[in-house]
Amino acid sequence: MRKHIFNAGPCKLSDSCLENTAKAVIELNNSGQSILEVSHRSKDFQAVIDEATALFKECLNIPENYHVLFLGGGASTQFAMIPFNFLKKKAVYVNTGTWSSKAIKEAQLFGEVEVIASSEDKKHTYYPKGFKIPADADYLHITSNNTIRGTEIFEDLDSPIPVIADMSSDIMSRPVDVSKYVMIYGGAQKNMGPSGATFVIIQDEFMKTAIKDRVIPTMLKYDTHVDSGSMYNTPPCINIFALNETLKWVKAQGGVEAMEKLAIERAGLLYSEFDRNSLFKSPVEPGSRSRMNIPFVWTEGNDGLQDAFLKFAADRNIVGLKGHRSVGGFRASTYNASTIEDVNVLVKCMQDFEAENK
Amino acid sequence: MRKHIFNAGPCKLSDSCLENTAKAVIELNNSGQSILEVSHRSKDFQAVIDEATALFKECLNIPENYHVLFLGGGASTQFAMIPFNFLKKKAVYVNTGTWSSKAIKEAQLFGEVEVIASSEDKKHTYYPKGFKIPADADYLHITSNNTIRGTEIFEDLDSPIPVIADMSSDIMSRPVDVSKYVMIYGGAQKNMGPSGATFVIIQDEFMKTAIKDRVIPTMLKYDTHVDSGSMYNTPPCINIFALNETLKWVKAQGGVEAMEKLAIERAGLLYSEFDRNSLFKSPVEPGSRSRMNIPFVWTEGNDGLQDAFLKFAADRNIVGLKGHRSVGGFRASTYNASTIEDVNVLVKCMQDFEAENK
Repeated sequence: MRKHIFNAGPCKLSDSCLENTAKAVIELNNSGQSILEVSHRSKDFQAVIDEATALFKECLNIPENYHVLFLGGGASTQFAMIPFNFLKKKAVYVNTGTWSSKAIKEAQLFGEVEVIASSEDKKHTYYPKGFKIPADADYLHITSNNTIRGTEIFEDLDSPIPVIADMSSDIMSRPVDVSKYVMIYGGAQKNMGPSGATFVIIQDEFMKTAIKDRVIPTMLKYDTHVDSGSMYNTPPCINIFALNETLKWVKAQGGVEAMEKLAIERAGLLYSEFDRNSLFKSPVEPGSRSRMNIPFVWTEGNDGLQDAFLKFAADRNIVGLKGHRSVGGFRASTYNASTIEDVNVLVKCMQDFEAENK
Repeated sequence: MRKHIFNAGPCKLSDSCLENTAKAVIELNNSGQSILEVSHRSKDFQAVIDEATALFKECLNIPENYHVLFLGGGASTQFAMIPFNFLKKKAVYVNTGTWSSKAIKEAQLFGEVEVIASSEDKKHTYYPKGFKIPADADYLHITSNNTIRGTEIFEDLDSPIPVIADMSSDIMSRPVDVSKYVMIYGGAQKNMGPSGATFVIIQDEFMKTAIKDRVIPTMLKYDTHVDSGSMYNTPPCINIFALNETLKWVKAQGGVEAMEKLAIERAGLLYSEFDRNSLFKSPVEPGSRSRMNIPFVWTEGNDGLQDAFLKFAADRNIVGLKGHRSVGGFRASTYNASTIEDVNVLVKCMQDFEAENK
C-alpha cells in the first residue's frame, strides 16, 4: 500500500521514476548490465547524463552561457565551495534560517560576510523583502525556500552584484529567470530526484572569476567539474539516472509551468484549511508562505494532541508530518510529485481530527 | 541476457544486490515508500546504515577504536581531506600510478610531500617493495591496488608512522589487519557496491590529531561526519542501501576469506592463460600482479588485432575489456562478484581467438 508521503526530502517521487529506476537496476536498456554496474564512461551512461542536462536546460530555460553540473557531496559541500572560489573580500548573505546559517558559517571561514537581511527577529517566520543590496560585495547569497521554516521567495531579485541561490527545495517548482543569477544549486533530494546528487547551474563568465591564488582542492573547483562534464571522478550514476527520470516526468506533465500551477493548488488547499480548522494554524506570515514546505502548529490550548494527531494521520497512511526536530510542530512537504489527492487526504484527516477533538 | 562484465568500476555486482535494490526502489520493506523517498532520519533507513556499518566491521574485523563512515564525494574528495586535516609538516607517499599521483597532487597543496617509493621508472608495472619509511613524517599514504596499471600490494605494512591506504579497488578482497592502518578509504564502486558512496575507516586516536588551527570547511572535517554518524547532511541513501546488500552477500558467501580464495582462483586462470596464449601477455611483473584488475597486452607483432578482439569478445557477451584510455591494451577487472564462469568464458574467448588468428 503506497503511503501519502509528506517527507521533507528525500521525498515522494513520481511512479514513473520509481518504476524505470527499478527496471534499470535489473537492466539498463538492453545492455545486459545494471545501472549500478555500467561504466560511467559507457555510451549508455553518457546518454543518461546528456539527457538530464538537456532536459534541465530546457525545463528551466537555462541560457547558453550557463553550465549544468551533477555532482556528489550535497548542497552542504557547495556552502563551502562558493566562498572558497568566489569570496575575495566581502560577500553578502540573507539569513532565512538553518540552511542560510550554515552557508553563512562556511563563508565566514573565507572572508568578510555581511548579513544584509535576516528573519531571525521573528524566528524565521517570514521572508525579508525590499532589502538593499550593496554594490561593493563579491556576491549575494540567498536560500530561496526554507525547508525547515516554510518560507519562500517567489521573485528573482534585481541586484547590482551577482546573485547565488540555494534552490534545494524549490527548484523546478516555478519558472525562474536564470539570467538573474550567476549560480543556482541544491541537493537533488526534493524536486530533482533522490539524495546523493547535487545540481549546479553556473554562469560561464562568473565561473571564470574564481580566485586563482588561493589553495583550493581540485574537487572543490568548479572548472574541474565543468571541464570534465561532471565526470572528473566517478559520478553517482544511479542518482543521476533517477534525476533524469524525474526531469522526464516533469516535462511530460507540462514542465515547470504545470508544476507551479499544481504547487499553488496544493498549498492553497492546506493554507485554506488552516484558516478554517480551529485546531491548526500556519506559523508563517502570509506573503512568505512556502508552497513546498508547509509547517503547521496547534492553535492555543491544543498542543497536548501531538502524538494523537500523528497516530491519527498514520492510520490514514499519511507519513512525514513531523516537524523538523529543531522546531517541532508539523510540516507537510508538498513537492512536485505530491498529488492533489495526497493533499485532500491530509485535509480530510485534519477535518476528521478536529471533529473528534473539538 | 546478462553480460560477462569486466568493468573497472562501476562493476559487476551480485544478483542479490541488484534484485533487492530493485525491489527497494519500488518499496522499502513494507514501508509504503521507495528507498528513493524514505527519510534518511527514518527508522527504516537508520536500520540500513546501521547494518552496513556492523557488517563492514564484522567482515573486515575492524577494531573497536575505529569509526566507519559512508559519505558522498568519492575517493577524490578524500585525496584532499586527508592532507587538509592531517598534513602538518610533511607526509610521505608511495607513487604507484594515476590515483597515487592525484593523491600526491592534492597533498602538495597543504605541505611538504616526499615520494619515498615510486614505480614510475617502469611505467608502474610493479609495486615497490622494501622501501624505507621515515619516522619523521605525519603519515604514509599508499594506494594498495592500482586499478589502471593492475598492480597490488598484499601486505599490511609495518610502519613507524601512521599508514593511510586508498583501498578503492581491493577492499573486501582479502582479510586486512586494520590495526596496521589509521585510515582506509575508497570509492564504493568496486567491491562495496555502486558509485555514489565513499567508505572511510578511521582510527579514533588518529582522527583526534586533526589540525585545529587551519581553516577547513565543515564538510571536509572527519569529526563532522563521525559526530553525526555519516548524517551531517543527507546521505546517498540508495547507494548505501546497495552497499549494505553487497556486504550481506559477501558475508553469505563466506566473508573476505572466501572472497580472497575466489580472487586467487580467478586471477590464476587469467595469468596462466597469458603464459600459455601466444597472443596475449601481462605487462605487470610477477609478484605485483593484481587480483582485481588484470591488464593484458599483445605479444609482439599482433597489435593490429585490437578492434577485432574486442568485437570477438563482445560477440561472446563479454564487456568492459578495453584498457583505460591512458594506457590502452586490455584489462579484465575481476572484482568480488565476478564468477569463475565469467573468467572461463573470457579464457575460452582468448583461446578461440588465438586459434583463429595464429
